Amino acid sequence: MKIGILGLGLIGGSLGFDLRSQGHDVFGVSRRDSTCAKAIALGSVNQASVDISLLAATEIVFICTPLGLIVPQVEQLIQHLDATTIITDVGSIKAPIVRAISPLWNYFVGGHPMAGTADIGIEAAQPNLFVGRPYVLTPIHTTPSAAVAVVEKIVRSLGANIYHCQPEQHDRAVSWISHLPVMVSGSLIAACMSEPDPEVLQLAQKLASTGFQDTSRVGGGNPELGLMMAQYNRSALLNSLQQYRCNLDELIDLIEQENWASLEEKLQLNHQVRPNFLK
Amino acid sequence: MKIGILGLGLIGGSLGFDLRSQGHDVFGVSRRDSTCAKAIALGSVNQASVDISLLAATEIVFICTPLGLIVPQVEQLIQHLDATTIITDVGSIKAPIVRAISPLWNYFVGGHPMAGTADIGIEAAQPNLFVGRPYVLTPIHTTPSAAVAVVEKIVRSLGANIYHCQPEQHDRAVSWISHLPVMVSGSLIAACMSEPDPEVLQLAQKLASTGFQDTSRVGGGNPELGLMMAQYNRSALLNSLQQYRCNLDELIDLIEQENWASLEEKLQLNHQVRPNFLK
Repeated sequence: MKIGILGLGLIGGSLGFDLRSQGHDVFGVSRRDSTCAKAIALGSVNQASVDISLLAATEIVFICTPLGLIVPQVEQLIQHLDATTIITDVGSIKAPIVRAISPLWNYFVGGHPMAGTADIGIEAAQPNLFVGRPYVLTPIHTTPSAAVAVVEKIVRSLGANIYHCQPEQHDRAVSWISHLPVMVSGSLIAACMSEPDPEVLQLAQKLASTGFQDTSRVGGGNPELGLMMAQYNRSALLNSLQQYRCNLDELIDLIEQENWASLEEKLQLNHQVRPNFLK
Repeated sequence: MKIGILGLGLIGGSLGFDLRSQGHDVFGVSRRDSTCAKAIALGSVNQASVDISLLAATEIVFICTPLGLIVPQVEQLIQHLDATTIITDVGSIKAPIVRAISPLWNYFVGGHPMAGTADIGIEAAQPNLFVGRPYVLTPIHTTPSAAVAVVEKIVRSLGANIYHCQPEQHDRAVSWISHLPVMVSGSLIAACMSEPDPEVLQLAQKLASTGFQDTSRVGGGNPELGLMMAQYNRSALLNSLQQYRCNLDELIDLIEQENWASLEEKLQLNHQVRPNFLK
């Protein structure tokens, strides 16, 4: 197939490697000439250009830009495409994107590959990035099933595990397991820093070990990512945060009331159910 | 020296290995005959008994029992000791223990070695467990400095890094970096499980990756340990939890008000200060 990739970063570049290795013709578009040159030199794409019209001849386009650019780029892109060209994206939040693009383009299938590394950019791109990783597709009732089938076939060829759900269900699920942890973990760091006795704060910093380090890791991560989660998934995240606050309040009440039997029951339940979230 | 170890578990047993390797005479006491036999067979102690009077001839005794047994065991022990025998403990919470033992025994120095493994019992004991790990000592103004000097010398010989502070300072510090994370992390698991749509919950469990796994690890740990933290360090933990709740509420408010500039500032600050808690 002739496959377009708009946005040649870690995800777009890695996608290119896998698709080319399967014999597809891969056309890449980036905002920067230097990125286009790198993508060609690395072998991630057959052709690349800063001119979006390069994608006119493709049968399917993967939108791999940062989240905030997906909708504006699609608006530009569709001026160059045949009406049956399939568009799919890799954005980490789905409802606002599906809501914005569906009225503009019938052959659109929302997607979210849950793969990545700590690095970014075409230099970090690698073959087989999606093998064994979840890849969520969020078609809606108006999405042509033929378009979904094409996207599915390509995603399956990447070695990813496909999940289907509504865009809103996706956003709620990732709010629980990805966005809420960032806020919970960040608040832990902020709370510790509020210790008024400098000797105690310094001692806490010296004594902190793997327990604190693991619990605070995502909260101390890239601030732009955390901000993006809150901005684009605001209502699902607020719902998760309110629910989290209720659970925390219950725990505080039990400790205040010295209700040790109920506290132990709660801790026991957390211990029992956590393995359901592990592979 | 003639050194006693009361409680032959992971910490007591490991201590025995290190002290014997330095040529000390190590006397162990356990509640079980089988543990005494194992400790001798493994080479962790020179002699062992279920009879606490074995420790009568020692110059210093390390109390290495579970937290709840420290004070009752000391009450028994002191009926057999010379008045200048030093007692030190390895309990993970200090203020209630120091408060209870200081009026009973002048030569008492509270201690907390922050070392361990996921395993428990004499079988898990190992040489050099304390090397490079923090070891907090909490003498108070009435503690004889000669007693502190003896404990310090032994602790330094284990290769541990010694910190001195008040018992209450210790308990506040560990409440921030050890006990609060357990409650914060446990509430995350509980909140996720409250998702009412079973499809979304199942999807969340399938999509959960390293971010969720790290943030939920200590919250899904041993329920008895979590309960013990809440029971023995209740007031410091409640203080930490209340402060945490304020920080969480601030974050929720910013997201509700879409105050993205202030949210980014907070996330940025968490990102900047977290390395202070890492070695």
